[in-house]
Amino acid sequence: MRIAILGGTGSFGRALAGRLAAGGDDEIVIGSRDAGRAAETAAKLAEEVPDGTFSGFANGEAAERSEVVFLCVPFRNQSETLTNLKEHLREGQLLVDATVPLAAAVSGRATRMIGVWQGSAAQQAAEMVPAGVRVVSALHTVSAAVLRDPAQTPDEDVLVCGDKKADKLRAVEIIERVPGLRCVDCGRLEQSRTTESLTALLIGVNSRYKTHAGIRITGLPEQLWQPPS
Amino acid sequence: MRIAILGGTGSFGRALAGRLAAGGDDEIVIGSRDAGRAAETAAKLAEEVPDGTFSGFANGEAAERSEVVFLCVPFRNQSETLTNLKEHLREGQLLVDATVPLAAAVSGRATRMIGVWQGSAAQQAAEMVPAGVRVVSALHTVSAAVLRDPAQTPDEDVLVCGDKKADKLRAVEIIERVPGLRCVDCGRLEQSRTTESLTALLIGVNSRYKTHAGIRITGLPEQLWQPPS
Repeated sequence: MRIAILGGTGSFGRALAGRLAAGGDDEIVIGSRDAGRAAETAAKLAEEVPDGTFSGFANGEAAERSEVVFLCVPFRNQSETLTNLKEHLREGQLLVDATVPLAAAVSGRATRMIGVWQGSAAQQAAEMVPAGVRVVSALHTVSAAVLRDPAQTPDEDVLVCGDKKADKLRAVEIIERVPGLRCVDCGRLEQSRTTESLTALLIGVNSRYKTHAGIRITGLPEQLWQPPS
Repeated sequence: MRIAILGGTGSFGRALAGRLAAGGDDEIVIGSRDAGRAAETAAKLAEEVPDGTFSGFANGEAAERSEVVFLCVPFRNQSETLTNLKEHLREGQLLVDATVPLAAAVSGRATRMIGVWQGSAAQQAAEMVPAGVRVVSALHTVSAAVLRDPAQTPDEDVLVCGDKKADKLRAVEIIERVPGLRCVDCGRLEQSRTTESLTALLIGVNSRYKTHAGIRITGLPEQLWQPPS
């Protein structure tokens, strides 16, 4: 399988790409606005993760080549990126949106959110993708700093939202290859309003406590995802 | 010290009252719209928690008798309760708001929120209290079911928001008497938008996983609250 990481030259996308490559035998396709930078990042990642397979393309081509597409661009670029993706995405693909509408996107504080008309960045994504492309949201609360440091194992949950269980399960099977990340079903895509907001909250917590905090949901059973019967 | 629990006859307020009484030697003052029901609940709690001290009054009198006031009413009643409290609250008191604007307040779903003009229930409370009354928010994500079951020790964090560190510390010193509850400084009162929303998210998680889930912030240092120097 090929997995695209759009915004894969950014700190979060790049770190996620490295972890996903280390955890499976899929090809990780780095996407960027600039195909050259994408290829460069793919080459560097291949040195860092010798058992991983990487390639690099412009976002559109990266998406086209892949079955699952992680959208890891800054919110400032989310809408433009999705507009440009319209001709590249196709029915049956899964888009995993990780963008967060921090007020920093409009020169406000990173501890505050801006209101997205659709309710959340993920709902905006769902509105903008071509018919038949599935959208879930995840990974908002996972810190790039923890993911990119090979000495650290994350110890936190990934809050996953989406309107179809099967879509969420597809994303979960990929994300849980990263040791230390447990995915929790947080309901429909509209719940992304809350899971996205947690990023702003954690940015405040991080600056207050000089750390890279994450979220855990307590009191859950052992088995969180039932494979389809 | 006297600590008022307004909405103390409701399931969350009652459970909190029992835990706070067991953890300290303060008098817990149960407040309710109906003074008779408040006194009745206080009497029952005194049986259940023999080393606790309880009394029961109408909300206004309960607030007046106390230094710290926990507001545990349903959001549907928050504004009316605060209006009625105007003549009873006084400068220097601390109000700990635990109300959550679930859409259930307007016959919507408990997994959804309604928009509060001020941004959150806690900010509405801050606008409505008399000058000099301090407001923090806390406890939204703690389940009544876990608190009221003496066989269970909570294993979760309490997300505390407020504009003054000293106010938060005052609330934390009380809340952390409950074994198993760790308080995390989540920033200014405006961050209650997110901490309140987590209740709706957890209600969904609870129904999906048949549990009483809570929140933990991972990656934090040992010492979360510096006493004022």
